[in-house]
Amino acid sequence: MRRADDTPLRALVFDVFGTVVDWRSGLIGYFAEWGARAGRSADWAGIADAWRGAYVPSMDRVRRGEVAWTILDDLHRASLDTLLPVFGLGDVDDAARLEFVRFWHRLQPWPEVVPAMRRLRNKYVLGTLSNGNVGLLTRLAKAASLPFDVIIGADLFGHYKPDPETYRGACRLLNLGPGEVMLVAAHNGDLAAARAEGLATGFVPRRVEYGPHPSKDPAATAAWDVIAADFTDLADRLGA
Amino acid sequence: MRRADDTPLRALVFDVFGTVVDWRSGLIGYFAEWGARAGRSADWAGIADAWRGAYVPSMDRVRRGEVAWTILDDLHRASLDTLLPVFGLGDVDDAARLEFVRFWHRLQPWPEVVPAMRRLRNKYVLGTLSNGNVGLLTRLAKAASLPFDVIIGADLFGHYKPDPETYRGACRLLNLGPGEVMLVAAHNGDLAAARAEGLATGFVPRRVEYGPHPSKDPAATAAWDVIAADFTDLADRLGA
Repeated sequence: MRRADDTPLRALVFDVFGTVVDWRSGLIGYFAEWGARAGRSADWAGIADAWRGAYVPSMDRVRRGEVAWTILDDLHRASLDTLLPVFGLGDVDDAARLEFVRFWHRLQPWPEVVPAMRRLRNKYVLGTLSNGNVGLLTRLAKAASLPFDVIIGADLFGHYKPDPETYRGACRLLNLGPGEVMLVAAHNGDLAAARAEGLATGFVPRRVEYGPHPSKDPAATAAWDVIAADFTDLADRLGA
Repeated sequence: MRRADDTPLRALVFDVFGTVVDWRSGLIGYFAEWGARAGRSADWAGIADAWRGAYVPSMDRVRRGEVAWTILDDLHRASLDTLLPVFGLGDVDDAARLEFVRFWHRLQPWPEVVPAMRRLRNKYVLGTLSNGNVGLLTRLAKAASLPFDVIIGADLFGHYKPDPETYRGACRLLNLGPGEVMLVAAHNGDLAAARAEGLATGFVPRRVEYGPHPSKDPAATAAWDVIAADFTDLADRLGA
Protein backbone atom coordinates (compact mmCIF):
# COMPACT_ATOMS: atom_id res chain seq x y z
CA MET A 1 0.00 0.00 0.00
CA ARG A 2 1.14 3.50 -0.83
CA ARG A 3 -0.44 6.60 0.62
CA ALA A 4 -1.30 9.74 -1.28
CA ASP A 5 2.24 11.03 -0.77
CA ASP A 6 3.67 7.77 -2.18
CA THR A 7 5.45 6.77 1.03
CA PRO A 8 5.62 2.96 1.08
CA LEU A 9 4.21 1.33 4.19
CA ARG A 10 6.81 -0.67 6.16
CA ALA A 11 5.23 -1.53 9.50
CA LEU A 12 1.83 -2.11 11.07
CA VAL A 13 1.38 -1.46 14.77
CA PHE A 14 -1.73 -2.80 16.43
CA ASP A 15 -3.92 -1.67 19.26
CA VAL A 16 -4.34 -4.86 21.30
CA PHE A 17 -7.27 -4.85 23.77
CA GLY A 18 -10.43 -5.00 21.71
CA THR A 19 -8.66 -4.84 18.33
CA VAL A 20 -6.54 -8.02 18.53
CA VAL A 21 -7.91 -9.82 21.58
CA ASP A 22 -11.43 -10.31 22.94
CA TRP A 23 -10.88 -9.10 26.50
CA ARG A 24 -14.54 -9.47 27.57
CA SER A 25 -15.15 -13.15 26.73
CA GLY A 26 -11.67 -13.97 28.01
CA LEU A 27 -12.10 -12.31 31.39
CA ILE A 28 -15.59 -13.77 31.90
CA GLY A 29 -14.35 -17.27 31.02
CA TYR A 30 -11.30 -17.09 33.31
CA PHE A 31 -13.37 -15.69 36.21
CA ALA A 32 -15.94 -18.47 35.75
CA GLU A 33 -13.17 -21.12 35.73
CA TRP A 34 -11.72 -19.65 38.91
CA GLY A 35 -15.18 -19.51 40.49
CA ALA A 36 -15.81 -23.18 39.71
CA ARG A 37 -12.46 -24.11 41.30
CA ALA A 38 -12.91 -21.83 44.31
CA GLY A 39 -16.61 -22.59 44.84
CA ARG A 40 -17.57 -18.96 44.36
CA SER A 41 -20.07 -17.33 42.09
CA ALA A 42 -20.58 -13.69 41.16
CA ASP A 43 -21.67 -11.52 38.25
CA TRP A 44 -18.57 -12.29 36.18
CA ALA A 45 -19.77 -10.31 33.16
CA GLY A 46 -20.50 -7.36 35.44
CA ILE A 47 -16.99 -7.54 36.94
CA ALA A 48 -15.38 -7.79 33.50
CA ASP A 49 -17.32 -4.76 32.24
CA ALA A 50 -16.64 -2.72 35.37
CA TRP A 51 -12.94 -3.62 35.29
CA ARG A 52 -12.62 -2.53 31.67
CA GLY A 53 -14.72 0.52 32.51
CA ALA A 54 -12.09 1.59 35.05
CA TYR A 55 -9.38 1.41 32.35
CA VAL A 56 -9.66 4.81 30.69
CA PRO A 57 -10.28 6.81 33.90
CA SER A 58 -7.28 5.13 35.59
CA MET A 59 -5.00 5.93 32.64
CA ASP A 60 -6.37 9.46 32.44
CA ARG A 61 -5.26 10.11 36.01
CA VAL A 62 -1.73 9.15 34.91
CA ARG A 63 -2.03 11.17 31.69
CA ARG A 64 -3.09 14.27 33.63
CA GLY A 65 -0.14 13.84 36.00
CA GLU A 66 -2.35 13.28 39.07
CA VAL A 67 -0.46 10.08 39.82
CA ALA A 68 3.08 9.06 38.88
CA TRP A 69 3.74 6.73 35.95
CA THR A 70 2.09 3.37 36.71
CA ILE A 71 2.09 0.32 34.41
CA LEU A 72 -1.21 -1.17 33.28
CA ASP A 73 -0.77 -4.33 35.40
CA ASP A 74 -0.68 -2.10 38.48
CA LEU A 75 -3.62 0.05 37.34
CA HIS A 76 -5.54 -3.20 36.82
CA ARG A 77 -4.69 -4.33 40.34
CA ALA A 78 -5.76 -1.04 41.90
CA SER A 79 -9.10 -0.97 40.09
CA LEU A 80 -9.66 -4.67 40.88
CA ASP A 81 -9.16 -3.97 44.59
CA THR A 82 -11.85 -1.28 44.38
CA LEU A 83 -14.28 -3.47 42.44
CA LEU A 84 -14.14 -6.79 44.25
CA PRO A 85 -16.04 -5.65 47.38
CA VAL A 86 -18.75 -4.16 45.16
CA PHE A 87 -19.31 -7.63 43.67
CA GLY A 88 -19.26 -9.47 47.01
CA LEU A 89 -15.68 -10.67 46.61
CA GLY A 90 -13.93 -8.39 49.10
CA ASP A 91 -12.52 -11.39 50.98
CA VAL A 92 -10.60 -12.81 47.97
CA ASP A 93 -6.95 -13.26 48.91
CA ASP A 94 -3.85 -11.76 47.38
CA ALA A 95 -2.86 -14.86 45.39
CA ALA A 96 -6.24 -14.89 43.64
CA ARG A 97 -6.04 -11.17 42.93
CA LEU A 98 -2.65 -11.70 41.30
CA GLU A 99 -4.17 -14.51 39.23
CA PHE A 100 -7.01 -12.20 38.15
CA VAL A 101 -4.58 -9.49 37.01
CA ARG A 102 -2.80 -12.15 34.96
CA PHE A 103 -6.02 -13.05 33.14
CA TRP A 104 -5.09 -10.08 30.93
CA HIS A 105 -1.83 -11.86 30.05
CA ARG A 106 -3.62 -14.74 28.35
CA LEU A 107 -6.53 -13.20 26.52
CA GLN A 108 -7.29 -14.86 23.19
CA PRO A 109 -7.47 -13.20 19.77
CA TRP A 110 -10.54 -12.82 17.61
CA PRO A 111 -10.82 -15.90 15.36
CA GLU A 112 -9.34 -14.55 12.13
CA VAL A 113 -6.43 -12.70 13.72
CA VAL A 114 -3.55 -15.21 13.68
CA PRO A 115 -3.90 -16.49 10.08
CA ALA A 116 -4.32 -12.92 8.79
CA MET A 117 -1.33 -11.65 10.80
CA ARG A 118 0.81 -14.49 9.40
CA ARG A 119 0.03 -13.17 5.91
CA LEU A 120 0.70 -9.56 6.91
CA ARG A 121 3.99 -10.53 8.55
CA ASN A 122 5.37 -11.66 5.19
CA LYS A 123 5.13 -8.10 3.92
CA TYR A 124 5.36 -5.81 6.95
CA VAL A 125 7.02 -5.49 10.33
CA LEU A 126 4.25 -6.17 12.87
CA GLY A 127 4.26 -4.61 16.31
CA THR A 128 1.97 -3.95 19.20
CA LEU A 129 1.23 -0.34 20.10
CA SER A 130 -0.78 -0.80 23.23
CA ASN A 131 -1.35 0.75 26.60
CA GLY A 132 -0.32 -2.59 28.08
CA ASN A 133 3.16 -2.87 29.60
CA VAL A 134 5.83 -4.78 27.70
CA GLY A 135 5.81 -7.71 30.14
CA LEU A 136 2.03 -8.11 29.87
CA LEU A 137 2.06 -7.84 26.06
CA THR A 138 5.00 -10.23 25.70
CA ARG A 139 3.23 -12.90 27.74
CA LEU A 140 -0.06 -12.30 25.90
CA ALA A 141 1.58 -12.55 22.45
CA LYS A 142 3.47 -15.69 23.49
CA ALA A 143 0.44 -17.42 25.04
CA ALA A 144 -1.71 -16.74 21.97
CA SER A 145 1.05 -17.33 19.38
CA LEU A 146 0.50 -13.86 17.94
CA PRO A 147 3.17 -13.35 15.25
CA PHE A 148 4.47 -9.95 16.35
CA ASP A 149 8.00 -8.95 15.39
CA VAL A 150 8.30 -6.39 18.18
CA ILE A 151 6.47 -5.52 21.38
CA ILE A 152 5.81 -1.83 21.96
CA GLY A 153 4.02 -0.91 25.18
CA ALA A 154 3.22 2.31 26.98
CA ASP A 155 5.95 1.77 29.58
CA LEU A 156 8.56 2.37 26.87
CA PHE A 157 7.42 5.97 26.76
CA GLY A 158 5.96 6.63 30.19
CA HIS A 159 2.85 7.80 28.36
CA TYR A 160 -0.52 6.25 27.55
CA LYS A 161 -2.31 6.54 24.23
CA PRO A 162 -3.65 8.87 22.98
CA ASP A 163 -0.65 10.95 24.14
CA PRO A 164 1.40 11.81 21.01
CA GLU A 165 4.61 10.49 22.62
CA THR A 166 3.34 6.93 22.06
CA TYR A 167 2.77 7.20 18.29
CA ARG A 168 5.94 9.23 17.73
CA GLY A 169 7.88 6.89 20.00
CA ALA A 170 6.80 3.78 18.08
CA CYS A 171 8.04 5.30 14.81
CA ARG A 172 11.32 6.35 16.42
CA LEU A 173 11.92 2.84 17.83
CA LEU A 174 11.21 1.29 14.42
CA ASN A 175 13.52 3.87 12.77
CA LEU A 176 10.72 4.75 10.37
CA GLY A 177 8.97 7.94 9.40
CA PRO A 178 5.33 8.22 10.54
CA GLY A 179 4.07 7.78 6.97
CA GLU A 180 5.77 4.37 6.84
CA VAL A 181 3.81 3.10 9.87
CA MET A 182 0.09 2.26 10.08
CA LEU A 183 -1.83 2.03 13.33
CA VAL A 184 -4.49 -0.68 13.13
CA ALA A 185 -7.26 -0.17 15.69
CA ALA A 186 -10.94 -0.76 16.34
CA HIS A 187 -11.19 2.63 18.04
CA ASN A 188 -11.65 5.85 16.11
CA GLY A 189 -10.11 8.02 18.83
CA ASP A 190 -6.86 6.05 18.76
CA LEU A 191 -6.70 6.41 14.96
CA ALA A 192 -7.41 10.15 15.11
CA ALA A 193 -4.50 10.63 17.52
CA ALA A 194 -2.22 8.53 15.29
CA ARG A 195 -3.23 10.48 12.18
CA ALA A 196 -2.46 13.74 13.98
CA GLU A 197 1.15 12.48 14.28
CA GLY A 198 1.28 11.55 10.60
CA LEU A 199 0.81 7.78 10.85
CA ALA A 200 -1.26 5.84 8.34
CA THR A 201 -4.51 4.50 9.79
CA GLY A 202 -6.40 1.22 9.46
CA PHE A 203 -9.82 0.67 11.04
CA VAL A 204 -11.29 -2.74 11.80
CA PRO A 205 -14.64 -2.72 13.64
CA ARG A 206 -15.16 -5.02 16.61
CA ARG A 207 -18.88 -4.59 17.08
CA VAL A 208 -19.12 -7.27 19.79
CA GLU A 209 -16.19 -5.94 21.85
CA TYR A 210 -18.62 -5.11 24.65
CA GLY A 211 -20.75 -8.26 24.23
CA PRO A 212 -24.44 -7.35 24.42
CA HIS A 213 -23.61 -3.71 25.16
CA PRO A 214 -23.35 -1.26 22.26
CA SER A 215 -19.92 -0.79 20.71
CA LYS A 216 -18.49 2.70 21.11
CA ASP A 217 -17.00 2.40 17.60
CA PRO A 218 -19.45 0.46 15.43
CA ALA A 219 -18.12 2.11 12.27
CA ALA A 220 -15.39 4.37 10.98
CA THR A 221 -16.05 8.02 11.79
CA ALA A 222 -13.41 9.38 9.39
CA ALA A 223 -11.89 8.44 6.04
CA TRP A 224 -9.10 6.26 7.45
CA ASP A 225 -6.51 5.07 4.93
CA VAL A 226 -7.92 1.54 5.13
CA ILE A 227 -11.34 0.58 6.46
CA ALA A 228 -11.56 -3.22 6.62
CA ALA A 229 -14.22 -5.67 7.76
CA ASP A 230 -11.71 -7.71 9.78
CA PHE A 231 -7.99 -8.66 9.71
CA THR A 232 -8.48 -10.97 6.72
CA ASP A 233 -9.96 -8.11 4.75
CA LEU A 234 -7.12 -5.87 6.00
CA ALA A 235 -4.55 -8.36 4.65
CA ASP A 236 -6.43 -8.48 1.33
CA ARG A 237 -6.55 -4.71 1.04
CA LEU A 238 -2.85 -4.38 1.89
CA GLY A 239 -1.91 -6.98 -0.73
CA ALA A 240 -0.39 -9.37 1.84
CA MET B 1 16.78 -24.33 36.30
CA ARG B 2 16.82 -22.95 39.82
CA ARG B 3 19.61 -20.88 41.24
CA ALA B 4 21.12 -21.24 44.68
CA ASP B 5 18.42 -19.01 46.14
CA ASP B 6 15.68 -21.15 44.53
CA THR B 7 14.36 -18.37 42.29
CA PRO B 8 12.86 -20.03 39.21
CA LEU B 9 14.20 -18.77 35.91
CA ARG B 10 11.50 -17.18 33.71
CA ALA B 11 13.30 -15.41 30.88
CA LEU B 12 16.51 -15.62 28.88
CA VAL B 13 17.89 -12.46 27.30
CA PHE B 14 20.58 -12.83 24.67
CA ASP B 15 23.53 -10.80 23.61
CA VAL B 16 23.19 -10.77 19.81
CA PHE B 17 26.35 -9.79 17.90
CA GLY B 18 28.78 -12.67 18.28
CA THR B 19 26.56 -14.71 20.59
CA VAL B 20 23.51 -15.26 18.34
CA VAL B 21 24.73 -14.10 14.93
CA ASP B 22 28.04 -14.47 13.09
CA TRP B 23 28.68 -10.82 12.23
CA ARG B 24 32.09 -11.44 10.62
CA SER B 25 31.17 -14.02 7.98
CA GLY B 26 27.96 -12.11 7.31
CA LEU B 27 29.63 -8.76 6.73
CA ILE B 28 32.38 -10.26 4.56
CA GLY B 29 29.84 -12.14 2.45
CA TYR B 30 27.59 -9.12 1.94
CA PHE B 31 30.55 -6.86 1.09
CA ALA B 32 31.81 -9.42 -1.45
CA GLU B 33 28.34 -9.67 -3.03
CA TRP B 34 28.16 -5.90 -3.28
CA GLY B 35 31.69 -5.79 -4.73
CA ALA B 36 30.81 -8.33 -7.42
CA ARG B 37 27.74 -6.27 -8.36
CA ALA B 38 29.57 -2.94 -8.26
CA GLY B 39 32.78 -4.19 -9.89
CA ARG B 40 34.85 -3.22 -6.87
CA SER B 41 37.27 -5.21 -4.78
CA ALA B 42 38.81 -4.48 -1.43
CA ASP B 43 40.00 -6.23 1.73
CA TRP B 44 36.49 -7.16 2.83
CA ALA B 45 37.68 -9.13 5.86
CA GLY B 46 39.82 -6.19 6.87
CA ILE B 47 36.88 -3.79 6.60
CA ALA B 48 34.64 -6.13 8.60
CA ASP B 49 37.25 -6.47 11.35
CA ALA B 50 37.97 -2.74 11.44
CA TRP B 51 34.26 -1.89 11.49
CA ARG B 52 33.63 -4.23 14.41
CA GLY B 53 36.79 -2.88 16.02
CA ALA B 54 35.27 0.61 16.03
CA TYR B 55 32.20 -0.69 17.90
CA VAL B 56 33.33 -0.59 21.52
CA PRO B 57 35.24 2.72 21.27
CA SER B 58 32.25 4.40 19.57
CA MET B 59 29.87 3.18 22.29
CA ASP B 60 32.32 4.15 24.99
CA ARG B 61 32.25 7.75 23.79
CA VAL B 62 28.46 7.67 24.30
CA ARG B 63 28.82 5.89 27.64
CA ARG B 64 31.27 8.52 28.90
CA GLY B 65 28.91 11.29 27.82
CA GLU B 66 31.35 12.71 25.26
CA VAL B 67 28.63 12.53 22.62
CA ALA B 68 24.84 12.57 23.01
CA TRP B 69 22.84 9.35 22.83
CA THR B 70 23.29 7.83 19.36
CA ILE B 71 21.76 4.57 18.14
CA LEU B 72 24.01 1.79 16.90
CA ASP B 73 22.93 2.22 13.26
CA ASP B 74 24.23 5.79 13.40
CA LEU B 75 27.46 4.79 15.19
CA HIS B 76 27.95 2.18 12.44
CA ARG B 77 27.47 4.83 9.77
CA ALA B 78 29.93 7.25 11.38
CA SER B 79 32.64 4.60 11.76
CA LEU B 80 32.01 3.35 8.22
CA ASP B 81 32.53 6.86 6.86
CA THR B 82 35.89 6.98 8.62
CA LEU B 83 36.96 3.52 7.42
CA LEU B 84 36.02 3.52 3.76
CA PRO B 85 38.78 5.91 2.60
CA VAL B 86 41.34 3.82 4.50
CA PHE B 87 40.34 0.81 2.39
CA GLY B 88 40.29 2.69 -0.92
CA LEU B 89 36.51 3.10 -0.97
CA GLY B 90 36.20 6.77 -0.14
CA ASP B 91 34.22 7.43 -3.32
CA VAL B 92 31.39 5.02 -2.48
CA ASP B 93 28.06 6.86 -2.63
CA ASP B 94 25.47 7.43 0.05
CA ALA B 95 23.07 4.73 -1.18
CA ALA B 96 25.81 2.09 -0.93
CA ARG B 97 26.80 3.29 2.53
CA LEU B 98 23.17 2.94 3.66
CA GLU B 99 23.17 -0.58 2.21
CA PHE B 100 26.37 -1.42 4.12
CA VAL B 101 24.87 -0.22 7.42
CA ARG B 102 21.90 -2.47 6.75
CA PHE B 103 24.17 -5.53 6.37
CA TRP B 104 23.94 -5.61 10.17
CA HIS B 105 20.14 -5.98 9.87
CA ARG B 106 20.41 -9.33 8.09
CA LEU B 107 23.26 -11.15 9.76
CA GLN B 108 22.70 -14.87 10.06
CA PRO B 109 22.77 -16.97 13.25
CA TRP B 110 25.29 -19.66 14.12
CA PRO B 111 23.98 -22.99 12.79
CA GLU B 112 22.49 -24.48 15.97
CA VAL B 113 20.79 -21.29 17.18
CA VAL B 114 17.27 -21.43 15.72
CA PRO B 115 16.42 -25.08 16.58
CA ALA B 116 17.81 -24.63 20.11
CA MET B 117 15.94 -21.35 20.63
CA ARG B 118 12.71 -23.02 19.53
CA ARG B 119 13.19 -25.55 22.35
CA LEU B 120 14.06 -22.83 24.86
CA ARG B 121 11.05 -20.76 23.83
CA ASN B 122 8.69 -23.52 25.03
CA LYS B 123 9.95 -23.00 28.56
CA TYR B 124 11.15 -19.40 28.81
CA VAL B 125 10.42 -15.92 27.56
CA LEU B 126 13.20 -15.16 25.07
CA GLY B 127 14.43 -11.63 24.46
CA THR B 128 17.34 -9.79 22.95
CA LEU B 129 19.49 -7.67 25.27
CA SER B 130 21.77 -6.05 22.76
CA ASN B 131 23.51 -2.79 22.07
CA GLY B 132 21.66 -2.77 18.76
CA ASN B 133 18.69 -0.42 18.39
CA VAL B 134 15.20 -1.89 18.41
CA GLY B 135 14.67 -1.26 14.68
CA LEU B 136 17.92 -3.01 13.75
CA LEU B 137 17.23 -5.98 16.06
CA THR B 138 13.61 -6.32 14.90
CA ARG B 139 14.70 -6.53 11.25
CA LEU B 140 17.54 -8.92 12.10
CA ALA B 141 15.27 -11.26 14.10
CA LYS B 142 12.65 -11.17 11.36
CA ALA B 143 15.10 -11.80 8.50
CA ALA B 144 16.70 -14.76 10.30
CA SER B 145 13.45 -16.15 11.79
CA LEU B 146 14.90 -15.92 15.28
CA PRO B 147 12.13 -16.90 17.70
CA PHE B 148 12.36 -13.98 20.12
CA ASP B 149 9.30 -13.05 22.17
CA VAL B 150 10.48 -9.50 22.79
CA ILE B 151 13.10 -7.15 21.37
CA ILE B 152 15.13 -5.22 23.93
CA GLY B 153 17.72 -2.81 22.58
CA ALA B 154 19.96 -0.15 24.05
CA ASP B 155 17.80 2.69 22.72
CA LEU B 156 15.07 1.69 25.21
CA PHE B 157 17.39 2.86 27.97
CA GLY B 158 19.63 5.44 26.33
CA HIS B 159 22.52 3.36 27.67
CA TYR B 160 24.89 0.82 26.20
CA LYS B 161 25.97 -2.40 27.89
CA PRO B 162 27.79 -2.83 30.20
CA ASP B 163 26.00 0.13 31.85
CA PRO B 164 23.84 -1.27 34.68
CA GLU B 165 20.74 0.56 33.36
CA THR B 166 20.53 -1.99 30.53
CA TYR B 167 20.39 -5.13 32.68
CA ARG B 168 18.09 -3.53 35.26
CA GLY B 169 15.96 -2.07 32.50
CA ALA B 170 15.46 -5.43 30.81
CA CYS B 171 14.21 -6.96 34.08
CA ARG B 172 11.90 -4.00 34.70
CA LEU B 173 10.39 -4.24 31.20
CA LEU B 174 9.82 -7.98 31.67
CA ASN B 175 8.29 -7.32 35.11
CA LEU B 176 10.69 -9.86 36.61
CA GLY B 177 13.24 -9.81 39.37
CA PRO B 178 16.88 -10.05 38.25
CA GLY B 179 17.17 -13.59 39.60
CA GLU B 180 14.38 -14.66 37.24
CA VAL B 181 16.31 -13.49 34.16
CA MET B 182 19.45 -15.02 32.63
CA LEU B 183 21.77 -13.17 30.28
CA VAL B 184 23.19 -15.53 27.67
CA ALA B 185 26.41 -14.21 26.13
CA ALA B 186 29.70 -15.26 24.57
CA HIS B 187 31.47 -12.41 26.33
CA ASN B 188 32.65 -12.65 29.94
CA GLY B 189 32.55 -8.89 30.52
CA ASP B 190 28.87 -8.71 29.60
CA LEU B 191 28.10 -11.57 32.00
CA ALA B 192 30.10 -9.97 34.80
CA ALA B 193 28.11 -6.75 34.46
CA ALA B 194 24.82 -8.72 34.42
CA ARG B 195 25.82 -10.70 37.50
CA ALA B 196 26.64 -7.47 39.33
CA GLU B 197 22.97 -6.52 38.86
CA GLY B 198 21.76 -9.91 40.14
CA LEU B 199 20.92 -11.59 36.84
CA ALA B 200 21.61 -15.27 36.23
CA THR B 201 24.39 -15.87 33.70
CA GLY B 202 24.87 -18.33 30.84
CA PHE B 203 28.12 -18.53 28.85
CA VAL B 204 28.41 -19.99 25.36
CA PRO B 205 31.83 -19.70 23.70
CA ARG B 206 32.08 -18.52 20.11
CA ARG B 207 35.73 -19.27 19.46
CA VAL B 208 35.51 -18.35 15.75
CA GLU B 209 33.71 -15.03 16.31
CA TYR B 210 36.81 -13.24 14.95
CA GLY B 211 37.54 -15.80 12.24
CA PRO B 212 41.29 -16.54 12.11
CA HIS B 213 41.97 -13.96 14.84
CA PRO B 214 42.03 -15.11 18.47
CA SER B 215 38.75 -14.93 20.39
CA LYS B 216 38.76 -12.48 23.29
CA ASP B 217 36.61 -14.94 25.26
CA PRO B 218 37.72 -18.49 24.37
CA ALA B 219 36.47 -19.83 27.70
CA ALA B 220 34.52 -18.85 30.80
CA THR B 221 36.57 -16.72 33.17
CA ALA B 222 34.18 -17.13 36.13
CA ALA B 223 31.79 -19.74 37.50
CA TRP B 224 28.76 -18.59 35.50
CA ASP B 225 25.45 -20.26 36.42
CA VAL B 226 25.52 -22.24 33.16
CA ILE B 227 28.57 -22.83 30.97
CA ALA B 228 27.45 -24.52 27.77
CA ALA B 229 29.23 -25.68 24.60
CA ASP B 230 26.60 -24.06 22.35
CA PHE B 231 22.87 -23.22 22.35
CA THR B 232 21.90 -26.90 21.99
CA ASP B 233 23.87 -27.72 25.12
CA LEU B 234 22.33 -24.67 26.82
CA ALA B 235 18.83 -25.98 26.04
CA ASP B 236 19.83 -29.42 27.38
CA ARG B 237 21.23 -27.95 30.58
CA LEU B 238 18.14 -25.78 31.13
CA GLY B 239 15.83 -28.77 30.64
CA ALA B 240 14.12 -27.26 27.60
